[in-house]
Amino acid sequence: MTERPLILITNDDGILAQGIQELTSLMCTLGDVAVVAPDGPRSGMACAISAVTPVRLQPVGPQKQALRRMQCSGTPVDCVKLALEHVTGRKPDILVSGINHGDNASVSMHYSGTIGAVLEGCMKDVPSVGFSLRTRKESCNFLPYRQVVLDTVAYVLERGLPQGVCLNVNFPEVDSQLEGVSVCRMARGNWVEEWESAGGETFRLTGRFVNLEPEAEDTDYWALDHGRASITPLRIDATAYPVLPGLKVLES
Amino acid sequence: MTERPLILITNDDGILAQGIQELTSLMCTLGDVAVVAPDGPRSGMACAISAVTPVRLQPVGPQKQALRRMQCSGTPVDCVKLALEHVTGRKPDILVSGINHGDNASVSMHYSGTIGAVLEGCMKDVPSVGFSLRTRKESCNFLPYRQVVLDTVAYVLERGLPQGVCLNVNFPEVDSQLEGVSVCRMARGNWVEEWESAGGETFRLTGRFVNLEPEAEDTDYWALDHGRASITPLRIDATAYPVLPGLKVLES
Repeated sequence: MTERPLILITNDDGILAQGIQELTSLMCTLGDVAVVAPDGPRSGMACAISAVTPVRLQPVGPQKQALRRMQCSGTPVDCVKLALEHVTGRKPDILVSGINHGDNASVSMHYSGTIGAVLEGCMKDVPSVGFSLRTRKESCNFLPYRQVVLDTVAYVLERGLPQGVCLNVNFPEVDSQLEGVSVCRMARGNWVEEWESAGGETFRLTGRFVNLEPEAEDTDYWALDHGRASITPLRIDATAYPVLPGLKVLES
Repeated sequence: MTERPLILITNDDGILAQGIQELTSLMCTLGDVAVVAPDGPRSGMACAISAVTPVRLQPVGPQKQALRRMQCSGTPVDCVKLALEHVTGRKPDILVSGINHGDNASVSMHYSGTIGAVLEGCMKDVPSVGFSLRTRKESCNFLPYRQVVLDTVAYVLERGLPQGVCLNVNFPEVDSQLEGVSVCRMARGNWVEEWESAGGETFRLTGRFVNLEPEAEDTDYWALDHGRASITPLRIDATAYPVLPGLKVLES
C-alpha cells in the first residue's frame, strides 16, 4: 500500500485568502491535505507566538480524510504548533505556506508570517516550503506559478530537505509565463522611510525596500526583477560561524 | 571633542520591566541613552511588525539629552523602527535590548521580541546586542551580570560588529557569580508538548524545551547549564549556502 502524502497548509493572509485556496486546490492533487490557517489577516507576524492569550482552533466546513480545514485565532506559528499537536495526527510529509500576497524576498522574510510558519515547520523537522507572489492585489492570476509550486513540492516530497533547512519560493507578477526559476541567496537590502503620520502621536507603517546589490545575479531580488521565480534555502541555525573566532576575546 | 556615544535601548517585556531599568542604569554610565520600549509586555513577538494597526509613540517622564524615554504601543521591532526615524535624530552607536526575563538561547531566539529588536537594529546597520536572563521571576538580582553587560557593550562600542551580524547574550541565574563567559553557537533544540487545554476549543501555549545536543560544549545551552554566560553571534542573512548547489536541479 502506498499511503498518500499528508500535506499541512497554512499562511498569514488568513484562511479566506485567494492564495491559500489556490495552494489547497493544487495540493489536493498530490495528497491528503490539512489546512490550519489564521481566521483573518496576520501579515508581518514573523515567528510571533501567542505567549499570553489562549488561542481558539475551529473546524471550517466538512472534515474529510482528503481535506480537513481548521481556523485559528492565533499567529501563523501558532497554527503550525496547533496543527502538529492537535490536528494532523502524524507528522506531515510536507508543510506549505502561502501563496502569500506580497513577496518575502531578501530581509522581508524576517517579518513574514508566511515564512514564520515555514521556519516553525522546519524547527519541528517537517520539510517546509513558503510560496509568495510579488503583488499588491487581493485577487490574482496564480496560473503562471502552478507548475513551479507542483515541481517544488514534488521534489521535496521525494527528496526531503536537509535537517534545519527550509525553502522560501518567491514569484514575480507576470502576465502569462515566468522567465525561469533561479536557486539563489537572499539579497542584502533594507526598508526605509517606514512611517507616515497617522495624526498626533500615532504612526502607520509603510516604507519602501532598497536593494543594496541590484546587480547581483545570484540573489532573489535579481530573479524577481527579471521575471524569474526565486528559490532560496533558509536555515534555522542563525549562528554567524565565521565571526565566532574573532569574538573569543570576550571569553573568560 | 569626544561625543558621548548614543545608546538606544529597547526590550519586549515593556518599559516598566525591571530588566530594562537595570540596563538603562548601566548604559547611562556609558553614554547618552534613548529608551524606546513597548508600553506593556510583548514576549514572543519575534520580528513582528504592526502591518495594519497604527502605533502610538509617547514620551515617558522628563526628556533630557542624557536620558530620553518613550513608550510605544507596537512591537519591539516597531520600537526600533520608530526610534531610528523619529526619536534618536542620528544613528545610534549601539542598540541594546533586554535584559529579558527568560533566556533566548537556541531556537528560542526565533520567537523572541528581545532578539527581534536586535535583528531589526542589525538590519539598519546599528551594532546590536540582546541580553537575556534565564529566569521565571519578574524581580531578579541583576548584579552578577553587570560586568559582562558592560564589557560586551564596551567591546562593541570600540570595535563595532561585522555588517549583518548581531549578538545574543544569555545569562544563567546564579546567586553571586558567573562561572565564566563562552562565545558559542546556537544549540540544536526544540519546544515540545506546547499546548494545554484552556477549555473547549481553546488552548494555552506552554511547553518544554528539549536540547538535542546536551553534551555539546560549544553551544549556548551548555554554557547556561554550566553557570556560564553565552555570547552567540547571529546573522541576518538566513541563506543556507551549503545547500544551494544541490538545489540547482530545480532551476530552469
